[in-house]
Amino acid sequence: MLEFDKTPSYQSVRDAAARLNGIVVRTPLLESIALNEKLGARLFLKCETLQHTGSFKFRGAYNTLSRLSGAQKAAGVLAYSSGNHAQGVALSAKMLGIPATILMPVDSPAIKLENTRGYGARVVTYDRYSQSREEIGAEIAAEYNLTLVKPYDNYFVISGQGTTGVEIAGQLLEKNIRADVCVSPAGGGGLVAGTSLALRELSPKTQIYSAEPEFFDDTKRSLALGKRVANEDGHRSICDAIVTPMPGEITFGVNKVTLSGGLAVSDAETAEAMRAAFHYFKCVIEPGGAVAFAALLSGKLDISGKTAVAIASGGNVDPALYCRILSGEAQ
Amino acid sequence: MLEFDKTPSYQSVRDAAARLNGIVVRTPLLESIALNEKLGARLFLKCETLQHTGSFKFRGAYNTLSRLSGAQKAAGVLAYSSGNHAQGVALSAKMLGIPATILMPVDSPAIKLENTRGYGARVVTYDRYSQSREEIGAEIAAEYNLTLVKPYDNYFVISGQGTTGVEIAGQLLEKNIRADVCVSPAGGGGLVAGTSLALRELSPKTQIYSAEPEFFDDTKRSLALGKRVANEDGHRSICDAIVTPMPGEITFGVNKVTLSGGLAVSDAETAEAMRAAFHYFKCVIEPGGAVAFAALLSGKLDISGKTAVAIASGGNVDPALYCRILSGEAQ
Repeated sequence: MLEFDKTPSYQSVRDAAARLNGIVVRTPLLESIALNEKLGARLFLKCETLQHTGSFKFRGAYNTLSRLSGAQKAAGVLAYSSGNHAQGVALSAKMLGIPATILMPVDSPAIKLENTRGYGARVVTYDRYSQSREEIGAEIAAEYNLTLVKPYDNYFVISGQGTTGVEIAGQLLEKNIRADVCVSPAGGGGLVAGTSLALRELSPKTQIYSAEPEFFDDTKRSLALGKRVANEDGHRSICDAIVTPMPGEITFGVNKVTLSGGLAVSDAETAEAMRAAFHYFKCVIEPGGAVAFAALLSGKLDISGKTAVAIASGGNVDPALYCRILSGEAQ
Repeated sequence: MLEFDKTPSYQSVRDAAARLNGIVVRTPLLESIALNEKLGARLFLKCETLQHTGSFKFRGAYNTLSRLSGAQKAAGVLAYSSGNHAQGVALSAKMLGIPATILMPVDSPAIKLENTRGYGARVVTYDRYSQSREEIGAEIAAEYNLTLVKPYDNYFVISGQGTTGVEIAGQLLEKNIRADVCVSPAGGGGLVAGTSLALRELSPKTQIYSAEPEFFDDTKRSLALGKRVANEDGHRSICDAIVTPMPGEITFGVNKVTLSGGLAVSDAETAEAMRAAFHYFKCVIEPGGAVAFAALLSGKLDISGKTAVAIASGGNVDPALYCRILSGEAQ
């Protein structure tokens, strides 16, 4: 049986990189000469928006599903997700011939529901304000003997997401550059945990930060306190992909060691970053995917004269919301 | 003195590739698993939207400007352009320390005017419906002893654009794939000419087509007739980047030998391609940059079971127009 609860390491990230080689998109690390000049810094955007399924989640999902036993593959997998992990699992399952059932909030962006079904997964919806996805998920998994693939608290998932960091390190090396800072969006914290394991080894002088929406800055506050704390109820954010209640157990175990701190941005700052990504990079970023770029653009760290990397973690945004943000009507 | 009027060749494209190595972005060649399934084909998008200045034009501009003599560099350059060549020349001039004057239509997209000025060029505007940019350009160039860098009928410009084709060939080789078809947007025809010189040598079984907006399909009709013919007056198109009056002399000299034919698409088909690029690729493409992708999506060639490449040549579109197209209000 696979152990999903182990603590990932640099070695497990390298193993994932070998597994995903030729399967994932080696997404570009872009910079804008005009934006650099404006910022007085060198800012690179790691465009996981261009990953299969439009987000980094495909990395961890494929790494995990590809390692299941024959019996586990035949029985199928279950995942719960606001949409990006859903698509990552659905596509990985399709590529590997595994039946997939996905629990998604009924108010997930239409584009995410549609795409998940498009990859052939069975989608079950629930109300995220009144129902517990963990409970529903556990019931369905037990009834049908499905393997539950959690969105972040999973050894293979975190290791897979970390391949983003392996690529960043390689791409910086090709350009003969060292990054002073790397900022990654954090929901449950899988991407930043995996990426930090890679960068700590491959680029040890790079400081790594998480970025979150304000009121959902559980990782930031947990890092400051040295223990996991949850977000207050009653807040909403445009960043649907990363409004998780508190840091994961495994992810926080990594992040409390590897990160230099956490940053939080307002929805207005996120919207401004989405507009800047359109203008300077011609890249569509979804709200939750833009918080790291937003943190740097809005000066949450002083990067003047420095080299910084922001991970743009996903691009699955409904066109109507995107246009409201682009036109400045929303935030 | 540099000879701008020579006929470019595979060798001149290779020379440009050597010159541009490390200067241009090696833009990604993306595919969408979901779109491939829908089309029953393998379609790659060559994202020159992610090139410096947001279009392929930087390639030819830098290749040309970097070869000027010291005296020519000191005196400065002049270019006329609807906006993408303008930005390419402006940024190249800035990087090389050359003063640049750019003639642009007064109704160019605001984003293109603004960016061109942002790169430090002096912008002179004219009315494209009543004034001749060639005449105004010749006057200014003579008065100030500026070197005129035409947008497509220039040996070094065409050779530089052809580095797009060198990259496509290399990227296909890395994936161990052969493309059956490659389609490129065509205004004056520099990109498709240079790209075809590269692909004919590096991927000789790939058929190469130009794509244009209907009513501006001068390359298509010229190829069919074997001689250069102009477009009828009185039409307009959303594809501002490529509504040139007729094929270039040098570009057509190449294209009549290297191309398999020309394709034309309606503005509605172009708008649909822009929406598909948002949905499947998270890429912002401007109207003129989307015509090759539009030609393939709308079935102008039967690519069923085949492998095709569409060049997305630019992404400089005003956000307001982009949103009207994304929402289906415009075309």
